[in-house]
Amino acid sequence: MTDIADLEARLRRLEDIEEITRLVASYGPAVDAGLAEEVSGLWTEDGVYDVDELFMGDRAAIHAMVDSDAHQGLIGNGCTHFLGPVRVDVDGDEAIAVCHSILVAYHKERYVVARSGANRWELRRTSDGWRAVHRTTRALDGDAKARALLGPA
Amino acid sequence: MTDIADLEARLRRLEDIEEITRLVASYGPAVDAGLAEEVSGLWTEDGVYDVDELFMGDRAAIHAMVDSDAHQGLIGNGCTHFLGPVRVDVDGDEAIAVCHSILVAYHKERYVVARSGANRWELRRTSDGWRAVHRTTRALDGDAKARALLGPA
Amino acid sequence: MTDIADLEARLRRLEDIEEITRLVASYGPAVDAGLAEEVSGLWTEDGVYDVDELFMGDRAAIHAMVDSDAHQGLIGNGCTHFLGPVRVDVDGDEAIAVCHSILVAYHKERYVVARSGANRWELRRTSDGWRAVHRTTRALDGDAKARALLGPA
Repeated sequence: MTDIADLEARLRRLEDIEEITRLVASYGPAVDAGLAEEVSGLWTEDGVYDVDELFMGDRAAIHAMVDSDAHQGLIGNGCTHFLGPVRVDVDGDEAIAVCHSILVAYHKERYVVARSGANRWELRRTSDGWRAVHRTTRALDGDAKARALLGPA
Repeated sequence: MTDIADLEARLRRLEDIEEITRLVASYGPAVDAGLAEEVSGLWTEDGVYDVDELFMGDRAAIHAMVDSDAHQGLIGNGCTHFLGPVRVDVDGDEAIAVCHSILVAYHKERYVVARSGANRWELRRTSDGWRAVHRTTRALDGDAKARALLGPA
Repeated sequence: MTDIADLEARLRRLEDIEEITRLVASYGPAVDAGLAEEVSGLWTEDGVYDVDELFMGDRAAIHAMVDSDAHQGLIGNGCTHFLGPVRVDVDGDEAIAVCHSILVAYHKERYVVARSGANRWELRRTSDGWRAVHRTTRALDGDAKARALLGPA
């Protein structure tokens, strides 16, 4: 016999997945729109964003990256941070989300794939909802450590 | 105490997001299959599809675009309207969905990214379910107005 | 009046779609990580994976493909099996999922789109959850049969 508490738990699970899926889907549009507050707000205050060439150790560092001349120049030329579908594993108040990403840059009147990456997001349920606590992004250029990010939670 | 009406409202919210996510995910396959009826049916009768180079002011115009020699030639050569993950904001019977898209064209035995775009969908709940009332697509080539489409609902 | 059985049926439908969406989203990361067990486990024991140049007639054949020198060489050079958003149609214990896919390969220090494809997944609810029973992938190079895979369920 299905009772209300059981239904509520199943619904809560889907809500968690939806919220995390949305968080990941929000990154690309926000970073390409240059919205530093919106991008950095996807992380906790001390959340880490660790990309190949760039380590950002807290929300302020992520905010500064979006506002930087380098990033503003990138979006001023035209760029697309295109993320793939996400595989989410929720375990209580923590979760792992894994996805691909490609960066398409507009360069000399052509669109080029400038990078392809593996992404592993560690997330936590906070009083404000799910937030990223650690995102690691590595180029899929043959490096075994990049591939390992795509493995099971 | 969770009651049934509360559960139903939460479930309804997830159903709305699922239906809109599916609508957006249906566009690429349908347009690349050349299915004019299926593509145009994603919009309301007077729904607008406004792309850089082409303004379609109602469902009939969208239908005509899919059936046009230009589009049929594009799919006859091989093309992929590849959409990104969508961020959906539902507000009662209206919704905003934002996503990236890239167009991959097969040309001289190679696949090239022919365009990358920002998409903003305005949707409405109708008696037949959610439908697009206005979709704006702009190339992400550095234009600030294209980037602005990716901002908050 | 909404009753619990009705809510449960609606919830079950969303759970089915979520599980199938996750299965499809799991393919790219698992195959790029080279995880033969995880990839082949997305299919039933006698599940078929039929790609242009390669027909795999059961789970063991899919497992062998991932472990093959050809595939291990591909991921050793750097590759990204990037799938698009999926349109899922569930009918009882069977389902059809349709999506695009692109293959991005790292070659001579550049990322190139090596292929773009149409994917049609036939799935079945088993005692272990949803599994693929037949996936057909065809290059979107202008072939009408590839386009037809993207049509309605």
